[in-house]
Amino acid sequence: MTAPNRNVLWARAAVDELAKSGVDAVCVCPGSRSTPLTVALAEHDDIRVFSHLDERSAAFFALGRGKRTGRPTPVVTTSGTATANLHPAVMEANQARVPLLLLTADRPPELRDSGANQTVDQTKLYGDAVRHFRELPEPEADDRKLRSLRTAVCRAVGETTGANPGPVHLNFPFRKPLEPTEAPGDVPGSFAEDYPLAAEGRDGPFVAVDHGRSEPPERVLADLADAAASAERGLVVAGPDDHGLAGDAAAALAEATGFPVFADPLSDARFGSQTADAPVVGGYDGFLAADFPAPDFVLRFGASPTSKRLRHFLRDADARQVVVDAAGGWREAEFTATDLVAADPTETARALAERVDSGRSDWTDRVLDAEARYWGAVDGFERDCLLEGDVAATVFADAPDPATIAVSNSMPVRDADRFARPRDANLTVLGNRGASGVDGVTSTALGAGSATDDPLVLLTGDIAYYHDSNGLLALERCGVDATVVLVNNDGGGIFHELPIEAFDPPFTEQFVTPHGLDFAPTGDTYDLEFARVESLDGFREAYRESVGSPGTQVIEVRTDAEATHRERDRLDSLVADRL
Amino acid sequence: MTAPNRNVLWARAAVDELAKSGVDAVCVCPGSRSTPLTVALAEHDDIRVFSHLDERSAAFFALGRGKRTGRPTPVVTTSGTATANLHPAVMEANQARVPLLLLTADRPPELRDSGANQTVDQTKLYGDAVRHFRELPEPEADDRKLRSLRTAVCRAVGETTGANPGPVHLNFPFRKPLEPTEAPGDVPGSFAEDYPLAAEGRDGPFVAVDHGRSEPPERVLADLADAAASAERGLVVAGPDDHGLAGDAAAALAEATGFPVFADPLSDARFGSQTADAPVVGGYDGFLAADFPAPDFVLRFGASPTSKRLRHFLRDADARQVVVDAAGGWREAEFTATDLVAADPTETARALAERVDSGRSDWTDRVLDAEARYWGAVDGFERDCLLEGDVAATVFADAPDPATIAVSNSMPVRDADRFARPRDANLTVLGNRGASGVDGVTSTALGAGSATDDPLVLLTGDIAYYHDSNGLLALERCGVDATVVLVNNDGGGIFHELPIEAFDPPFTEQFVTPHGLDFAPTGDTYDLEFARVESLDGFREAYRESVGSPGTQVIEVRTDAEATHRERDRLDSLVADRL
Repeated sequence: MTAPNRNVLWARAAVDELAKSGVDAVCVCPGSRSTPLTVALAEHDDIRVFSHLDERSAAFFALGRGKRTGRPTPVVTTSGTATANLHPAVMEANQARVPLLLLTADRPPELRDSGANQTVDQTKLYGDAVRHFRELPEPEADDRKLRSLRTAVCRAVGETTGANPGPVHLNFPFRKPLEPTEAPGDVPGSFAEDYPLAAEGRDGPFVAVDHGRSEPPERVLADLADAAASAERGLVVAGPDDHGLAGDAAAALAEATGFPVFADPLSDARFGSQTADAPVVGGYDGFLAADFPAPDFVLRFGASPTSKRLRHFLRDADARQVVVDAAGGWREAEFTATDLVAADPTETARALAERVDSGRSDWTDRVLDAEARYWGAVDGFERDCLLEGDVAATVFADAPDPATIAVSNSMPVRDADRFARPRDANLTVLGNRGASGVDGVTSTALGAGSATDDPLVLLTGDIAYYHDSNGLLALERCGVDATVVLVNNDGGGIFHELPIEAFDPPFTEQFVTPHGLDFAPTGDTYDLEFARVESLDGFREAYRESVGSPGTQVIEVRTDAEATHRERDRLDSLVADRL
Repeated sequence: MTAPNRNVLWARAAVDELAKSGVDAVCVCPGSRSTPLTVALAEHDDIRVFSHLDERSAAFFALGRGKRTGRPTPVVTTSGTATANLHPAVMEANQARVPLLLLTADRPPELRDSGANQTVDQTKLYGDAVRHFRELPEPEADDRKLRSLRTAVCRAVGETTGANPGPVHLNFPFRKPLEPTEAPGDVPGSFAEDYPLAAEGRDGPFVAVDHGRSEPPERVLADLADAAASAERGLVVAGPDDHGLAGDAAAALAEATGFPVFADPLSDARFGSQTADAPVVGGYDGFLAADFPAPDFVLRFGASPTSKRLRHFLRDADARQVVVDAAGGWREAEFTATDLVAADPTETARALAERVDSGRSDWTDRVLDAEARYWGAVDGFERDCLLEGDVAATVFADAPDPATIAVSNSMPVRDADRFARPRDANLTVLGNRGASGVDGVTSTALGAGSATDDPLVLLTGDIAYYHDSNGLLALERCGVDATVVLVNNDGGGIFHELPIEAFDPPFTEQFVTPHGLDFAPTGDTYDLEFARVESLDGFREAYRESVGSPGTQVIEVRTDAEATHRERDRLDSLVADRL
């Protein structure tokens, strides 16, 4: 590897290690200070460059890709506020444990705190939200420095994955020239010959980073197997997790124990895992009520469930509750869990399934009966208006197999939780439930879509669609097609679910915040097909057509949040009657 | 003050102190956790609530208002990623010394690191970028706690201003109920009677915070006056500063010393300060060349000048260079300054003006001659195409008096620097030159506009317009009218000014990043008038009409960045010939 100057040498070595560590794509935001990295990335044959103009959207795009693939898609920015724009996605990646690698360019150290242009303090910019921060040294054609760089890059990629995946930040100071111009004497002509390892690295990554998978000790497995065998009302809870408990491991555990699996729509268990003997339950958010008999033994996987009813149901249960968490983290905010098993969830579930062989309990039968009655009630419910939940139900029921479905926070994920019926299809469902923001939703979806040939569906709301409208630029620039289902209730419909509804003012003006935005023009701006449908039948037809078509279609469904809220309540009463 | 629960009591006390400390407006982003603050703000008669849906835009709006007024406009958000979206504006406020107060709601402490929804670590979230961070205690009807809260709010407002204005962050944990529902026993019925100070505060602010203005010691003034009197080639540099060196103080100093003032367009000196005896110079970025005789004594005010030529001219001068900085900060990245005077710039300039009475030097005459020749060359230059600089020139030349003009980073501010001729008009010019990002530009402008009855003009580019397109929502929601001059050269025109231009690929794809966006649909989305003009005459006509009209007009001028760059070079040669 020859290089016209030290920055080129440095950036090529870093990019070389990214590629050798398995990075096959990056998100690059244009800027001057990052020129060495951008040029090295653009010239690399094995790395695809996704070019983004809004760094916030870029980071969420990378986050979505990381959620879908389980591997990091680095984000490259220039110095200054560009770096702060990554912070929302960094926060989400931290909370939701998503691999994310931030490569920020910086001014050289002598310019810090000097009033120099675009020079801010990027040291530990994201605080404790990253797994690892590294201030890289100043580029130089130096043997040890380059080996240190190659090592740092390999380790950074490795640190984004493992038992506790998350964001990692490398800060790269660069001094001019930033372009691949000749700087005589900068890189000695004999450097590659003298220091081949520093200059060229190895055939594979400079450091091969591999993570083990932790299995629980035999003592713990035996104890849990005993507890499962003797439980009268055992339950498996599969919470949101991108690469946590595998759906088939959840099913195997359910088969072996006879426990039902309450499968969050953002777990791997709700879709494609149900077998005749594995009772996967999706209606719990609809049928659980205060008088439903509590479990006495609960095996919990993944993050805290989306369903508040389920969380309260678990809170009120006088049960042994075992949290299995690969990172040994605590993701159970009711503080009712009794055991924390820091081990890989899939390995744990499989190991446990091998050790238990119980029949289905009466309680499980009761759960399954409630599940059946719940979906029956949903089917039989006489609607007075177009329900947001029916749109969500259709999105899942009519999705092609396979499909990747991204779900916005606020109401869409709650509607998915309550109305997306388990089905035997390979649906990968993604949502940003780490910090549950409404920012970056579109970019997260498109990033996920960029990593798969699955048809991509995004179920979103009007606030989220507005918030990340810049993310739509990735459709054309990053070559992603999507079906975007935009449930537009003109403001924050979720606030109708909260007690603040009774206080108006300020309810409407400060909480619902109706904006009256007409989103149809985004069709012209971002060169997508924008259609508005008026009925559920109209939606179903447009949706089926879109998921089978190339290009991107936004299907807007206008709903009335207040009416939807009343209908949810009415359906609740009907379900209670049926049970 | 009675209150149905402790959160209401707490939030009302905080808002009471904001109002009594002079806060007359806030930016509120809808969210649940911030409900107590939002409700208390909405019910306060003396505080205007600007409701925003994108927190990033909200913070820049508040930043713009803070730049224009010199006082903070607090930003209220819910917990989670909402808070991280403020980070870009926080960074800019820190660098550019803009009052900004961040009021983030948080989950109660027991929910941290528990996997609870929307619960992230907000402690010291913005690191060293804030002047002051305070984790507020949990709300309670407690005498000392409430006095502490009132004190903390007054001090926070105070900390955003003074010699080193900037961002301050208060984090408010709240436990349910968040709404003004009755929580019996939460606030004893006799509380207001028992603790009137805690419950009601004082007639004015609980703590009146006032900042002194620092004047240089007499010894230093005498020394500087001597140096000024004996200088042969003395120069005043007025760099970017929102509330720094007053234009009339700069003029007084110029009159007394006979020095020219090189007035950055973002200083207060370029417009409205020129008198017959005060030589205010605006063409330095056009006429300074390597062979222009260097000054021997320089008085520098404000941040580092926008003009790279001026910065290099100062770097290469063998001169005594005195930096006057109210905060005693170092904003001179060439490290050629010889003196740092930590004192108020306006006081210093006035005090110095009183102590000097010198005539104009030959060097000043030479500068003024160059200034005249430069503008003559600009006038006489035969254009081959529509020049971006001519658009900028027209924006300033034809702006009404008074007017507030916001200028985007990248090329607009550079064009303003080179082509906006000093004139006798009250133009307040604002740009985000702290970190010089292209994010938040529209919101900054609209925030500034919200604080004044001046006509508001924004000179921006296509990347900045795209980046903060969400900011346009404030036009209608916050009742701001503007003339937006959108110079659209389809990508990052500034990169044509950099050496990377010679390396294509990746120049076009990764740096210029042509996006082909059609911005006309933003007219329909945001209910504004969108017009595209083809010529400078067409622009001038549309601009004059817009600045005299109500409502918001976006005037798009499509230009060719590459051709503009060549024309800049050709003009440079002409100027060199004329000098």
